[in-house]
Amino acid sequence: MNNFFHKKIKFILLEDLEKICNLSYKKKIKKKILNVNSIKEASNSEITFLNSSNYLKDAMHTNALVCIINKKFKKYLNKKTIPLISEQPEIDFYKVVNFFYPNSNVDNENVIHSKNINLIKKNIFIGHNTLVDKTAEIGNGTKIGNNVIIKPNVKIGNNCLIGSNVIISNALIGDNVIIKSGTLIGQTGFGFKYIDKTRLNFPHIGRVVLENNCQIGSLCTIDRGTLSDTVVGEFSTIDNQVQIAHNVKIGSFCIIASQVGIAGSTIIGNNVLIGGQAGISHHLKIGNYVKIGGKSGVVSSIDDNQIVMGYPAKSLREFVKQNKK
Amino acid sequence: MNNFFHKKIKFILLEDLEKICNLSYKKKIKKKILNVNSIKEASNSEITFLNSSNYLKDAMHTNALVCIINKKFKKYLNKKTIPLISEQPEIDFYKVVNFFYPNSNVDNENVIHSKNINLIKKNIFIGHNTLVDKTAEIGNGTKIGNNVIIKPNVKIGNNCLIGSNVIISNALIGDNVIIKSGTLIGQTGFGFKYIDKTRLNFPHIGRVVLENNCQIGSLCTIDRGTLSDTVVGEFSTIDNQVQIAHNVKIGSFCIIASQVGIAGSTIIGNNVLIGGQAGISHHLKIGNYVKIGGKSGVVSSIDDNQIVMGYPAKSLREFVKQNKK
Amino acid sequence: MNNFFHKKIKFILLEDLEKICNLSYKKKIKKKILNVNSIKEASNSEITFLNSSNYLKDAMHTNALVCIINKKFKKYLNKKTIPLISEQPEIDFYKVVNFFYPNSNVDNENVIHSKNINLIKKNIFIGHNTLVDKTAEIGNGTKIGNNVIIKPNVKIGNNCLIGSNVIISNALIGDNVIIKSGTLIGQTGFGFKYIDKTRLNFPHIGRVVLENNCQIGSLCTIDRGTLSDTVVGEFSTIDNQVQIAHNVKIGSFCIIASQVGIAGSTIIGNNVLIGGQAGISHHLKIGNYVKIGGKSGVVSSIDDNQIVMGYPAKSLREFVKQNKK
Repeated sequence: MNNFFHKKIKFILLEDLEKICNLSYKKKIKKKILNVNSIKEASNSEITFLNSSNYLKDAMHTNALVCIINKKFKKYLNKKTIPLISEQPEIDFYKVVNFFYPNSNVDNENVIHSKNINLIKKNIFIGHNTLVDKTAEIGNGTKIGNNVIIKPNVKIGNNCLIGSNVIISNALIGDNVIIKSGTLIGQTGFGFKYIDKTRLNFPHIGRVVLENNCQIGSLCTIDRGTLSDTVVGEFSTIDNQVQIAHNVKIGSFCIIASQVGIAGSTIIGNNVLIGGQAGISHHLKIGNYVKIGGKSGVVSSIDDNQIVMGYPAKSLREFVKQNKK
Repeated sequence: MNNFFHKKIKFILLEDLEKICNLSYKKKIKKKILNVNSIKEASNSEITFLNSSNYLKDAMHTNALVCIINKKFKKYLNKKTIPLISEQPEIDFYKVVNFFYPNSNVDNENVIHSKNINLIKKNIFIGHNTLVDKTAEIGNGTKIGNNVIIKPNVKIGNNCLIGSNVIISNALIGDNVIIKSGTLIGQTGFGFKYIDKTRLNFPHIGRVVLENNCQIGSLCTIDRGTLSDTVVGEFSTIDNQVQIAHNVKIGSFCIIASQVGIAGSTIIGNNVLIGGQAGISHHLKIGNYVKIGGKSGVVSSIDDNQIVMGYPAKSLREFVKQNKK
Repeated sequence: MNNFFHKKIKFILLEDLEKICNLSYKKKIKKKILNVNSIKEASNSEITFLNSSNYLKDAMHTNALVCIINKKFKKYLNKKTIPLISEQPEIDFYKVVNFFYPNSNVDNENVIHSKNINLIKKNIFIGHNTLVDKTAEIGNGTKIGNNVIIKPNVKIGNNCLIGSNVIISNALIGDNVIIKSGTLIGQTGFGFKYIDKTRLNFPHIGRVVLENNCQIGSLCTIDRGTLSDTVVGEFSTIDNQVQIAHNVKIGSFCIIASQVGIAGSTIIGNNVLIGGQAGISHHLKIGNYVKIGGKSGVVSSIDDNQIVMGYPAKSLREFVKQNKK
């Protein structure tokens, strides 16, 4: 895991889980759990969870040390991984995450502004009223507008252009990236559950990664990931008022027009074109070179090279046929 | 009426209406009108109006002292209420409102910033460049980000989390409320008429009421009410880039995903789930436990427990059937 | 051309085009090119381009001195205009524009704030932390909120109301204009091409023109034009979260509800009514008195007085019929 939160503790023991989320393993064994991770990326010292049939393949091949899991999915789990049966694996897992990373489910507004002399040396331009946290790093030749807030540990590459009124937190930004004014990068995403008449906001320990040369329009919101990162690939170009939810991965050379919304954990290939006001549901996979017509509502995954339109989105040919009737 | 505007005057006389909006009552009677209100909530010292058949039931039971009303609706009006016949009841009424409350149809940007010492005592965190009007009240333990503007008379409860670049006016905010960055609460709404080649912007003397524990995403706009309040209920959770128009009432434990728009005066029940990019027309009533699919366009009221989808929105069953053909 | 960029040079010679974009004219003639322009508005000392059959009529009647043009369209070009055959007329033309106007394809965040004493004399109100460039002009009685950025050469008329957190660049704003909080006026638009695995952002030397008495909602984005202006006509009224792309022209007395998106170069007549969340494709012409239902997707031009709805938008009558089945 790469992220911007400091773990509160170095490790927990398998037996500690009983205190944290009331889960215990039948065999009494001493195991150190060093961190949390997604089922796909977890290493053999990490804990993860599974509560959806979408990830059974990952479950079979996971390297995780421990997996909090629904009873019905247990048979799919890699035999090397310790299963902890739960009726609410996601919730119990997030309790563990919150234990490792307190405050990862809120937005930190505490910026310790530094008027770092190094900024001048590196040919950085910074506008009026702009706050740059003393732990943030900014590359050579980068220009930052007015009223901008760069929060702790953010890294911005060389020769970027950041507009005014931009807020950046929990983000890793490459070189030559353009972020237009009023855009918010790296906030917590829309992940929560109502439990016992209260709200549990999910932890967001992931980052936003903006790869080299990508461009983000004005008044966009790109939320940081829960466990993995939210990513915009190289040279992808995004228009104004676009919403990109937590964990979304966008490939390179994509074109995303204004007012598009992409829901959580959806993966978009390379060279994808998305027309204005289109919406894409969560947990989908959109192939390379896909074209999605403006205002389409995409509710299922799309193979490479397809052209779709409509709501629910179908092949362009079918859309045109239906609308000729 | 609870609101944030000071009345210019204590009362008007029934006969003054001739000067204000050219309406007069046939009988010469002395009546003091103390305030304006909606037909449903008006007391027997207040003036209201009626110009839509949607509110005939309210007309029968209104306690209003005076009602500016279309001739055709006069027969439905409570006999105790004085009818003033008008061809443009809404316009004439708004002239009366503007007389009572000047400047209620514009956004006031005049903030007299106070560095109130009490803030420290109450364990309040306030970021850089943030303006808090000296008449605003902020509860214990509330944290407010950078570049925030809290306008006159706003009340914010305890333990709230307000992001950066937020603007709050004419609002009453409960405890434990979360408002993410870039969101605007309490502006004037989209209410106006073109009359004689000019624009009459409607007064907005209502508030935005955010009840305890509700959560508002980033870059949302929640406009204040015209006569009544705009309300978001307890524990309701709203994602980024959502637009909530004047007078909308949202119940408790609702979930509203990104880029949803809810038009003026629509009432939403409790535990309602609204998918991303859905739009809901004005003056509708959405029941409890309703689920509205992403990108749906809702143009008529919905009973409790229904699941709808599509544009225009229909039952999910019908939507699926139609899209299988 | 009226714009806010200073030309780097007074003129180029026809023969210079070989260096700038590798185009040369068969005949060796000395011609001074003084500026760039659209094919419709170019004068006989200006260079333009043509790459779409939409503008063949303009090609026949253009006054341009030089036109960079696809081979297949050459026969339509006014005989007085010098044709320069190109396989990528738009790209080659933009290279010329960038030569005349460097930096017109990025947003300039450099504001030299002036606390101009004249502001007081003219009864101007300016809020806290607001930056007004020393070259900006502001009319009598105009009120500007907090955290606003008024960039170089912007002109704002008399008695305007500008909210807080507004950013204005490259704009000409009339009298009595209302711009609500958080809105961005005059940024570069979404115009670019991927060429040889890199992005060429198109120049934007046009302005945003907001005519007298128009009103713009909160958190809107109105991008400036590429060659011509983006225009909002007199008394038109726009709600929150609306996106208006480069070169769009909106007539007078239009009503545009929340979350509408209008794509590049579309022309909208007078007295047009557009419902919430509607989207309009690029390069369309919408007639006078047209009504577009909420959430409609308009993909073709519309004649005067039509009422349309749906996606793709069709006549209201047809939409209702289809949805009764």
